[in-house]
Amino acid sequence: MRMRVWKWLGLGLLLVVVIAIAIPVLKLLGYEQLDDADRLAQKQQYLQSLSASSSTAAQRPNIVIILLDDLGYGDVGAYGAQSIATPHIDSLAQNGMRFSHYYSPSPVCSPSRAAMLTGRYPPRTGLGHVVFPEGHFISNAQKISALNTRIPTEEIMLSDVLKAVGYNTAMVGKWHMGDVAPSLPNDFSFDSYYGGLYSNDMKPFPLYRNRDIEEAAELDQTRMNGLYTREVVEFVESQDTATPFFLYYAHNFPHEPLFSSPQQSGKSEAGLYGDVVEDIDHSVGELLAALQRKGLTENTLIIFTSDNGPWYQGSPGFNRGRKNQTWEGGQRVPFIVHWPASVGGNQLRTVPISGVDLFPTLLSVLDLPLPADRIIDGVDISPLWRGESELAERLIYYYGQSGATLDAVRDSRFKYHGRRGVRATGITKTLDLKAPMGPWLFDLAQDQQESYDVSAKYPLEMQRLQEAFEARDAEFRNNLRGWLPVK
Amino acid sequence: MRMRVWKWLGLGLLLVVVIAIAIPVLKLLGYEQLDDADRLAQKQQYLQSLSASSSTAAQRPNIVIILLDDLGYGDVGAYGAQSIATPHIDSLAQNGMRFSHYYSPSPVCSPSRAAMLTGRYPPRTGLGHVVFPEGHFISNAQKISALNTRIPTEEIMLSDVLKAVGYNTAMVGKWHMGDVAPSLPNDFSFDSYYGGLYSNDMKPFPLYRNRDIEEAAELDQTRMNGLYTREVVEFVESQDTATPFFLYYAHNFPHEPLFSSPQQSGKSEAGLYGDVVEDIDHSVGELLAALQRKGLTENTLIIFTSDNGPWYQGSPGFNRGRKNQTWEGGQRVPFIVHWPASVGGNQLRTVPISGVDLFPTLLSVLDLPLPADRIIDGVDISPLWRGESELAERLIYYYGQSGATLDAVRDSRFKYHGRRGVRATGITKTLDLKAPMGPWLFDLAQDQQESYDVSAKYPLEMQRLQEAFEARDAEFRNNLRGWLPVK
Repeated sequence: MRMRVWKWLGLGLLLVVVIAIAIPVLKLLGYEQLDDADRLAQKQQYLQSLSASSSTAAQRPNIVIILLDDLGYGDVGAYGAQSIATPHIDSLAQNGMRFSHYYSPSPVCSPSRAAMLTGRYPPRTGLGHVVFPEGHFISNAQKISALNTRIPTEEIMLSDVLKAVGYNTAMVGKWHMGDVAPSLPNDFSFDSYYGGLYSNDMKPFPLYRNRDIEEAAELDQTRMNGLYTREVVEFVESQDTATPFFLYYAHNFPHEPLFSSPQQSGKSEAGLYGDVVEDIDHSVGELLAALQRKGLTENTLIIFTSDNGPWYQGSPGFNRGRKNQTWEGGQRVPFIVHWPASVGGNQLRTVPISGVDLFPTLLSVLDLPLPADRIIDGVDISPLWRGESELAERLIYYYGQSGATLDAVRDSRFKYHGRRGVRATGITKTLDLKAPMGPWLFDLAQDQQESYDVSAKYPLEMQRLQEAFEARDAEFRNNLRGWLPVK
Repeated sequence: MRMRVWKWLGLGLLLVVVIAIAIPVLKLLGYEQLDDADRLAQKQQYLQSLSASSSTAAQRPNIVIILLDDLGYGDVGAYGAQSIATPHIDSLAQNGMRFSHYYSPSPVCSPSRAAMLTGRYPPRTGLGHVVFPEGHFISNAQKISALNTRIPTEEIMLSDVLKAVGYNTAMVGKWHMGDVAPSLPNDFSFDSYYGGLYSNDMKPFPLYRNRDIEEAAELDQTRMNGLYTREVVEFVESQDTATPFFLYYAHNFPHEPLFSSPQQSGKSEAGLYGDVVEDIDHSVGELLAALQRKGLTENTLIIFTSDNGPWYQGSPGFNRGRKNQTWEGGQRVPFIVHWPASVGGNQLRTVPISGVDLFPTLLSVLDLPLPADRIIDGVDISPLWRGESELAERLIYYYGQSGATLDAVRDSRFKYHGRRGVRATGITKTLDLKAPMGPWLFDLAQDQQESYDVSAKYPLEMQRLQEAFEARDAEFRNNLRGWLPVK
């Protein structure tokens, strides 16, 4: 035991020295992230083909994605919150469809967003990890490690597709997939962008209008909800109703640090966190009212969800774990679909779905073909919206915060949690203990809290999911980005 | 920011070098933990005075404490477990009193045990931290830091008191307050001891009979529950019913690593963890049957509880956090009192109580005076057993796993969680973020999960508990061991 400890201490020391030398060296050498020109050409060809074949844009629904940052499963009334009042968000569930087992594609911000907008699991997007502002020391360290610090331009986002078929596209809020060209929102077919390019705890935190800083000063974040609300309402009001629009409203809250608007301050029973969520609920209410005024409620498809579970505060419901972790509480978050023209009200679906399903589902709804040169991991869940209660059996994968690491996989009942994923579990370890750190099998039907490993009781299920896990891992090692042969 | 990182890297490097030099130096120098001879004399005088005044031992109840290791709030049927069958433990609650807000005195093993048996918060006992087997490198590191590696002999345990007033005293199971004389179970007035002296993940793990290893080989832990059960049953059966007895049955399970008995293997719906808990339930059943056969059920006071919340597996119920953490899930555990002669059946108490209450409560039940030379932190909760539903308002303190660090304090409704306690919260941090790491105020009446800091909403409560926290911290700094002037 003692020898092993010394070995690790020695390795740690060596690592410190290497990093100490490498960071300044790298800064001298410079660094450039290269995108994939061939795949970028494929992307452009795909988008042009969509554009050419698209003539019925006028009947297509408007699409609004409301993505909160670090909102937990239990933080809104429709998902059981007792001390936070969210009547407008709840009304989306009452008049739409609520999902009890939606999984964000990652337990952290950047990869969750990249995966949701592309329909591809985080490692495929080239952005399996959180990115930091240009020049931040972590960003520099990522460059040393040849990790991307912005999303590669060859990725195809929902905004690219919707723009290609004639939508007006706007984004308000947190981008967090790079803060330099050519990976800004406007580079991914958003006609307009307004918001903070990364997390509200990353300094400095100015607001951008399209590619430029609008307010050079550090944002007074008590103003943020009001500014974002003004922006989304103005966007809706500016629409001519003949052209469909796509609004991606990615709020920076309730990510820490928290600031409520002056008028909401102190009102919620759940303290500052509750005030911030109630602020957001008011913003959702303003957006819904604007849609109503324009007569657009009926044929506007609204998705309400979160990028991952709650962090320091916030409630994961009765799930184990939080943000950064591949326990259920890190990725199981609210997901509501509101689309009066096509989706009935007050419905619940319990089948597990994932954020990577959004891209293929919306393309299916719009009757558009998927890109053929790359793997799209998600499946079309629109049958659920139309009344089905089940999907064909499939697996949902959990990629940890460290990026390309597969932590866990679940089917309709069991979850296999691999040994490597344990580093992200938030368990406080002792130096001595290695044995019980997985792999684990949880029976989520009986044990939502992931308290009891039943691998010995269900050896066949264990073997099946373990093999699926290893196979998926091997597949990713061989073709991380999921490129398919181009015909 | 970069300068600060380098500073910490540098300090870390320095620390590595210092430890690398210090450990072998210490081993050369030798080390001896010194006890407090004056307080030891006080202890002996107190015990002699009890002994002299005690003449009614025969009418006193037998006392059995069943303490499990790392059993979580939600791991037994009486506390909501769905997939673990614990009929015997549940019968204790059905025929006795169940507490919904019992707090173990620490979120880790050694300090929780020391505090429960002495009625004093962990730092007072000289054992605020987990201890390791003699010669273990962590034990050596603790010696460098002048931390005790065994409980000081001047501490007064429940076993000392009960022996002094004529009880037969026996311990079976996990001691974990040092594995060398003069801090062995027999040194604290247990007539007999049988079990593993420390945690079942610490190597080697032999079984001891009194002061000596009984089986030199590493224990096959599938045998442990059977051996412990045989031992407690034999102890009960060996009692002459004229003399009361105290049995401290401190099971090593469900602490990891887990091993079920061959006959139980694969039976529980909750996998191996469930099998292990069901094994323990069978053991409790055997103990209850032995009491029944001897006609001792009526006047035997049985306490059933756990030393802290669950670790890797196990359910903390719907509480936040786990073992090692001062979240509710780390210390809020089952606590059942079964004493047909004095406590009615099927009762529930919701008032918060602590493991440090056990010592003063049992002394009150036996009409014995408390020691006068030292602070006893607990309060007498026997009025609750006799039918009261409330206690006088008081505060319960949460000491973190690092030992003398006060993490949190609660009253009947609010919990103040200090900034320092956050290191033990199990939240995965980023390098950037400092601001939201407390202090926090939680309204446990509304927010059992500790999701929402309401310090801004309840500034007076925040101030009151913060002041109590600081005052208690200062008091401990001035008189850590809680010694009172000797008259």
